[in-house]
Order: sequence, then structure tokens, then C-alpha cells
Amino acid sequence: MSLTPSPAHEALAANAADACAYDAGASMPARHARRFVLDLQLPLRHAGIRSVVVRGEWLGPVDAPLVVVAGGISANRHVAAGPGNAEAGWWEAQVGPGRAIDTRRLRVLAIDWLGADGGLDAPIDSADQADVLACVLDRLGVDRVAAFVGASYGAMVGLQFAARHGARLDRLVAISGAHRPHPYASAWRALQRQCVALGRSEGGVSQGLALARQWAMLSYRTPEEFADRFDAPAVLDGGVARCAAQDYLESCGRRYAARWTSTAFLRLSESIDLHRVDPADVRVPTTVVAIEQDRLVPLSDLQALVESLGGPSRLCVLRSRFGHDAFLKEEVAVDALLREALAACTGGAA
Amino acid sequence: MSLTPSPAHEALAANAADACAYDAGASMPARHARRFVLDLQLPLRHAGIRSVVVRGEWLGPVDAPLVVVAGGISANRHVAAGPGNAEAGWWEAQVGPGRAIDTRRLRVLAIDWLGADGGLDAPIDSADQADVLACVLDRLGVDRVAAFVGASYGAMVGLQFAARHGARLDRLVAISGAHRPHPYASAWRALQRQCVALGRSEGGVSQGLALARQWAMLSYRTPEEFADRFDAPAVLDGGVARCAAQDYLESCGRRYAARWTSTAFLRLSESIDLHRVDPADVRVPTTVVAIEQDRLVPLSDLQALVESLGGPSRLCVLRSRFGHDAFLKEEVAVDALLREALAACTGGAA
Repeated sequence: MSLTPSPAHEALAANAADACAYDAGASMPARHARRFVLDLQLPLRHAGIRSVVVRGEWLGPVDAPLVVVAGGISANRHVAAGPGNAEAGWWEAQVGPGRAIDTRRLRVLAIDWLGADGGLDAPIDSADQADVLACVLDRLGVDRVAAFVGASYGAMVGLQFAARHGARLDRLVAISGAHRPHPYASAWRALQRQCVALGRSEGGVSQGLALARQWAMLSYRTPEEFADRFDAPAVLDGGVARCAAQDYLESCGRRYAARWTSTAFLRLSESIDLHRVDPADVRVPTTVVAIEQDRLVPLSDLQALVESLGGPSRLCVLRSRFGHDAFLKEEVAVDALLREALAACTGGAA
Repeated sequence: MSLTPSPAHEALAANAADACAYDAGASMPARHARRFVLDLQLPLRHAGIRSVVVRGEWLGPVDAPLVVVAGGISANRHVAAGPGNAEAGWWEAQVGPGRAIDTRRLRVLAIDWLGADGGLDAPIDSADQADVLACVLDRLGVDRVAAFVGASYGAMVGLQFAARHGARLDRLVAISGAHRPHPYASAWRALQRQCVALGRSEGGVSQGLALARQWAMLSYRTPEEFADRFDAPAVLDGGVARCAAQDYLESCGRRYAARWTSTAFLRLSESIDLHRVDPADVRVPTTVVAIEQDRLVPLSDLQALVESLGGPSRLCVLRSRFGHDAFLKEEVAVDALLREALAACTGGAA
């Protein structure tokens, strides 16, 4: 495995630190705002300089230590309900008043992924996402990040942020994301993208996207969970067998296809496969969390990551029948490890 | 899990023993023939009485003990090269002169699966396949089967044959096939069938079938093998990321789509999900072989099978980075266990 970037990438990486030189110059949003939209111009690693719109959301006291929270490719800026948006967010169990990421004592920042709005049809990678975040922090007038808590793709971007912008970061919590994609998981995603491509080429965009999401759901969960939930024989329905899990999976696929564009899915899925970080470049204190049953990010890859990180690190291993989705489902176990990992942010035990 | 057949199935099952009453009455082929084609009329469990054509192949001495050999849903009657067909078969490593299934001392019979020619677009299950085999044996004038050696779908059909026609069977070797499909594996296959359906509905039949085969390949192999073979970063090709395993998978998909029809794939894939056997009905001595890394047929399901079989049994567990495909790839280990399991067929150690 080579972790050496190509010369073209080197040149762009060298520009990343002053990427905000390309800032389109919109007026700085108040740090007191609960939501913001920024127009940025950014040098992307594979796609040149692009104008992009970045949407973000704040929670917690303005002057509290800042924690960046980032989830999977289908997560977004709305992490938890708050004064500006009462709707439930994607990580309610961990973020809010009194939660492990305690919005009474921490300032929480989250942004939508670059590419999530479907407006950018070009290769995007995790380093682009880390540079976007750095640029956003500059524009918001934020110097230091007390912690980056990332899960799944968010963990990959957290590792990139630590490697590329570590000087402004105090600690990283990386859950179920490694320094590289596993080759089997990459193949799985490549076939998901082919489902979308088949739908697109034949006029069934939404069907292809829904099918890709169903395949993704299989990778996020485990045989153990399916055995618990769907242990019923197949039935014949209109002369065709229908398996017990199909209703569930199809509903996941339909809901996803109603909310996402195929371009956003293709570019964010691809972004995972373009991800590479040299662990030695990550020198901030790092907590790596692995799920023993994770079918996308094997424990062995996270062991290899921890062994080669450039700074102090530790590995926490959870067992969960939810596999890769444990960060969303194992609320108690994740709460406990986040409290421990973040205790130092507010100067003591939670 | 209910293993009780529906009343309709009961009625058909009761007919199965005299299924050959529906025999179309073609003249009996010589038992000396190397290949045969039979026209049969059969009561199918989900599709009523159907006229079907069954193709088979013989190897070995005419009067030697008979061994039935059956593989996965994409295997066929041509198990190994022989006097009638010099082309390599799908199980050359195990079948032939001096091999574990020794064609100098055993008579080997294999047939094409019902549905494999794409001419039968109706639900088929493993009990139908077992009944087809019983009917073929009647037509060929064969009373006893010294051993049924089945792998993958062949193991499921072997269990059905033992349950439904055990009186004529001496022993069963069931490799990587259980008494029921695992719910996660069923979901995996249901999504493969949706790939075909997406292609069909949108005019890309061959693309859909090739994509389904790529997903099947992922299920047959393991992350460990992919990590060994495909540990190279994704590359951008025409503005789209291409992962290291894609050439291999696409070539598997294309080759499959050139040889198979979508109807054959859909009906045989579905047939796995319609499979159920009550292990207590299997009373012949049975050797069950499990692969610890098998992602389709988990070791735990084969442990459960062995614990509830109705006759003497034993479980052999292999470790293999080839997962479900170990029966094709782990030639030495499979040779050893087949020799041991079949020693009694010829009255002694191999």
C-alpha cells in the first residue's frame, strides 16, 4: 500500500493551509448564529478550484470549547435538536444538554459534507472535506478545536483533519473509520455505484439509488442482527419468492432515494474509496473505537491504525450485533466512551 | 422458524415417491451411456405438473458403487473430464482416476439443475431437485446410492434427498449447505435478484445479470482474500474512482452473463431461499463440512444442523480465506475429508 500522494496532490496540499485565499469573501457570519451558509472557493484535490456552498449548524454556548461532530456520508449538519431547529438530529443520543457531548458545556459545530447537495459532480476526497472544515473555521474566527468526534466517514475526515490541520486540534475520537478503505468494502461500494449507474443508464435513477442503499444497509448491519429480526421462511408472492428482510430493506431504499440525489451518493461513496491517510501524520491524542462485528471497517485495520499513529493513542473495542452502525445504535456504550474521551475538554471528569 | 410445509406442499410431497408415474415414458437410456437426456413429467411443489428435460453425465465403471455429485447453482452435470467429454469439469480436483471421488472405483452421476436451462420460469425448490434426481435414478434403473456428495446448493439438495428418499441412500456429505438459508444471506440474494429485475425492467438484462453475479462473487469470497489480492488504492479513471477489485469482478460478471439466462439465475437463486429441511428427517449417516469464514452459510447454522440431524453425523470445520468457495479452492483439505468420508463406499480406506 502506498500512501504517497501524487505530485499534483502535493501541490494542492501545499495550498490547503491558505485555501482561504480563495475565499469568495462573503461576510463573516456571527458566531452567535445557530445556522450558517458560507460561499467558499476551494482548491479541490482532484477537481481544481471550485465555488462551493457550505452549510453548518451550531449548538451550545458561544465561548465553550469547540467540538466538531461528523457522521457517515448520509449524516448532515443537524446533529441534535436545539433552539434553532427543534427537529431530531442524527445523533440525539450523544449530543445535547447532559449528553456525552454536553451542549451546556461544549460548543458543537457540524457541517454538511461537500458534495451532499448533489451540486458538485467531481471527485471529492476526505482531505477536501478536512480542508473545507479548516476554511470554515477560519471564516468563523475559530482558532482551536478541543475535539473532533467522527464516526464512519466522519472518522476518516477526522484523521485527515488531524493530519493536515493538527496544529489547531487538541484530540480526536475516530469511531469505525480507518486510515484507508478495506479492499472488500471498496468492492462493495463500487458495486453499489454500479447499481446507480445501471439505473441511470436505463432510465431508473431512483430505483438504482434505492437498490444501492439497500446494499449499503446490508454492509452497515450484521448477520447476527438479521438472524434475530428476519428469521422467517421466504414466501411466494405473485410467483416470486420474497424474503423476510425485503420489506425493511426496500423501505430503507425508498426513503433514501426520496432524500438524496444520485450524484451526491456517487461522489460521497467514491470519496470513501479515495481516502488515504498516513497514520504517522496524525500526532494529536487519538481514541480509536472499533466494533468487532463491523463488516466494513474490520478490527484488524483499526489495530493497524493505532499501531502506527504518530501520537498518543488508544483503541476501544466494542462488540455489537449492529456492526458498523453501532455508533448510532449502542447508545450506552458509546455514551460511556465519549464521556471518557472528552472529559479533558472541560477540564475534568464528566 | 417453522419447518411445517403448507398443506399444498404436503399433497405434492405425498406424490413425490411415485413422481415417476408422471414419467413421459421416453425409452430408458443405457446405463453405459456417458451422457443422457431424459424427458420427464414432474409434480413441482410450487408450480404443478411440468414437462422437463433433465441432462446428466456418468463417469466411472458401470457396476461400481454410485456416488451422486452436486455443486452450486452455477455448477452442472460436467463434473470432470472423462471419455465422453475431455473438457475440464467444475470439480477436477476431487473427481477422476485416483482422486478422492475415484472414478476407477466409483460410478459418478451428476445432472444439470432443474431450471438451469432457463426454460422453466416458475418457483423451484430443493425438494423438487431431490425428486428430479430420484425420478432420474428410477429411469436409469439405479436402486441404491452409496453416497451423495453435495456442496453449496448441492448440499441443500443432498439434505432434501436424504430426507425424502433416504431409504435408497447410504451416506451424505454436505459441504457448506444447511437445512435453511441464513436470513442475511437471503437478503443478499434478494438484492441480487433486484439487480437483474432493474436491468430487465430498463432494457439492460445482461448488465443486471452481470452485476448480480458480481455481488454473488463477493458473497462467495472473503475480506481476507480481497485484502491479499486487491490492496491497491482506488484510481481515477475518466473522473470516476475505480477500485482494485473491479476488473476481476467485472470479468466474473461478464463471463457469467454470457453463459446464463436471467430466468435460470432468478429461479435458482430463489430456490436457495425457498429451501427448508427438518434435520430430524435426515437419518442417513452424514458428514457436514463447514468453513469458518463462509459469509453465506455461517458455522453456527451448520452446528445447529448437526445437533438436530436424525442419524449419525459429524461436523468437520475448515478454515479458509476462500470462504464459501473453499470446496472449489481448498483442494488438499477437501480431498482429505472426502477420502475419509467415502472410504466405506468401497469397503475400506482409500
